[in-house]
Amino acid sequence: MERTIGIVGLGLIGGSMAVDLRARGYASRLIGTDRNPLNAEAACRLGLVDRVAPLEECIKESDIMIVSVPVSAAAEIVQKVLDAFKDNAFTEKIVMDVCSTKAQIAERLKYHPCRKRYVASHPMAGTEHNGPWAAQPGLFDGRACIIADADESDSSAVRSVEELYRVLNMRIVHMTSASHDVHTAYVSHLSHVSSFALALTVLDKEKDEKHIFDLASGGFSSTVRLAKSNADMWVPIFTQNRENLLRVIDTYIDKIKDFREAVADYDEARLRALIDEANRIKKIIR
Amino acid sequence: MERTIGIVGLGLIGGSMAVDLRARGYASRLIGTDRNPLNAEAACRLGLVDRVAPLEECIKESDIMIVSVPVSAAAEIVQKVLDAFKDNAFTEKIVMDVCSTKAQIAERLKYHPCRKRYVASHPMAGTEHNGPWAAQPGLFDGRACIIADADESDSSAVRSVEELYRVLNMRIVHMTSASHDVHTAYVSHLSHVSSFALALTVLDKEKDEKHIFDLASGGFSSTVRLAKSNADMWVPIFTQNRENLLRVIDTYIDKIKDFREAVADYDEARLRALIDEANRIKKIIR
Repeated sequence: MERTIGIVGLGLIGGSMAVDLRARGYASRLIGTDRNPLNAEAACRLGLVDRVAPLEECIKESDIMIVSVPVSAAAEIVQKVLDAFKDNAFTEKIVMDVCSTKAQIAERLKYHPCRKRYVASHPMAGTEHNGPWAAQPGLFDGRACIIADADESDSSAVRSVEELYRVLNMRIVHMTSASHDVHTAYVSHLSHVSSFALALTVLDKEKDEKHIFDLASGGFSSTVRLAKSNADMWVPIFTQNRENLLRVIDTYIDKIKDFREAVADYDEARLRALIDEANRIKKIIR
Repeated sequence: MERTIGIVGLGLIGGSMAVDLRARGYASRLIGTDRNPLNAEAACRLGLVDRVAPLEECIKESDIMIVSVPVSAAAEIVQKVLDAFKDNAFTEKIVMDVCSTKAQIAERLKYHPCRKRYVASHPMAGTEHNGPWAAQPGLFDGRACIIADADESDSSAVRSVEELYRVLNMRIVHMTSASHDVHTAYVSHLSHVSSFALALTVLDKEKDEKHIFDLASGGFSSTVRLAKSNADMWVPIFTQNRENLLRVIDTYIDKIKDFREAVADYDEARLRALIDEANRIKKIIR
């Protein structure tokens, strides 16, 4: 089957999807667009897309449009795409986003006359790197992909998007956009806050002690890895998921304070109980 | 050269040292002891040591004694070993520890008549697993090893211990035990607190939401990895390094609160500045 995929935002996620959708025979043609001309050019040279074209042309030529830009820009672009679907009576085309927050964008598109041709999704995979150079094959293999508010979309559109994610070897999980934002605050957004704060704490100290990083162990590298993630992506995620994130940060601060208090009191029994409880994560995360 | 190494505590660190010291021809014979008979038996069966013997016998037969037990037990064992050196006039033997905190043990052994035959060290390597089954070759390769208070030890003893760590392919860094404890509070102990607290936060939520872990991404797995670390090891580290750790936790809570405030205020400029600053970690950690 001949299938053209259009990708708006040729970074880590869009680029990695392109790599596998082509390699696994799902996309016969890939067209892309990126507001940053350097990224667009690199994406072509790297062979992620066959060519770069303006948004309107991408929409016209593509069967499925993937919007993989920071969450601050995604809603507007998806809306533009849906507008074009409406103006051109493109009743078979589909647009999907891959954003890390889902409720705000859902709200904005709720009453669009072509809402049913939009499928909200979030493939939960990534690295701390960004840009088309960071694209890699197999990025999504075995990871979870959330499809949000599926009943707001045409079931045929949902089926097509599910098929696309199955080609990427993802486990599909359905939930509402509101649930999505609660869950990701816990399992993704908080990890980033904790890692950024860890980096800032150690960097603060490093101002006086130039050699502190000589000593960075594997454990530190692992907990601080996400602190390499970039602001373009994470600033809008944090503000768009404000309410959930604030609640989760407050719980996290309470847990840190539990440790602080137990250490301050030399309360070894309490420390042991906290660590034993935290160790339960072993049963859950491989 | 025939060299017998005695290991007290046949867990991840002692066991991994045994593997490489034998494989790389440094130790011709390895004797071990462990207060847990299951560990001792497993260490024999796994071939980490040639045999298990009581502490006194280990001391008599070994050229170098490695004490690799939790920090709560280490000072007493090193003291026993030094007592035996004194009672038997073992002037050539060496005892070294591998503990993650150094100031308390240094304080306790300060005036021991055989203090100079003790070398305080901390090979900064490990995994979140424990026990002899967790021992692995190459664990120390390329990592930093701190030797603390070297001028309190005979220079010949320090040279021997440095040689041993070079066989393990470690970069040797010298500092005082007080500096060591400050530095490790930043680059190791805080990472563990942040990771334990992250696990507790998410586990709390999971009581209501059974499926939250379906969504755990690679980022979460990486930041929560250290939360699998065990209480036997970490409770005494946290209490022995109490003052440094409290100071570091307080800075960390301040940084988390900086994020919280910026999110609460929708202050995107502030969030961007915090993340950009945290990103400086990229220049420092590979």
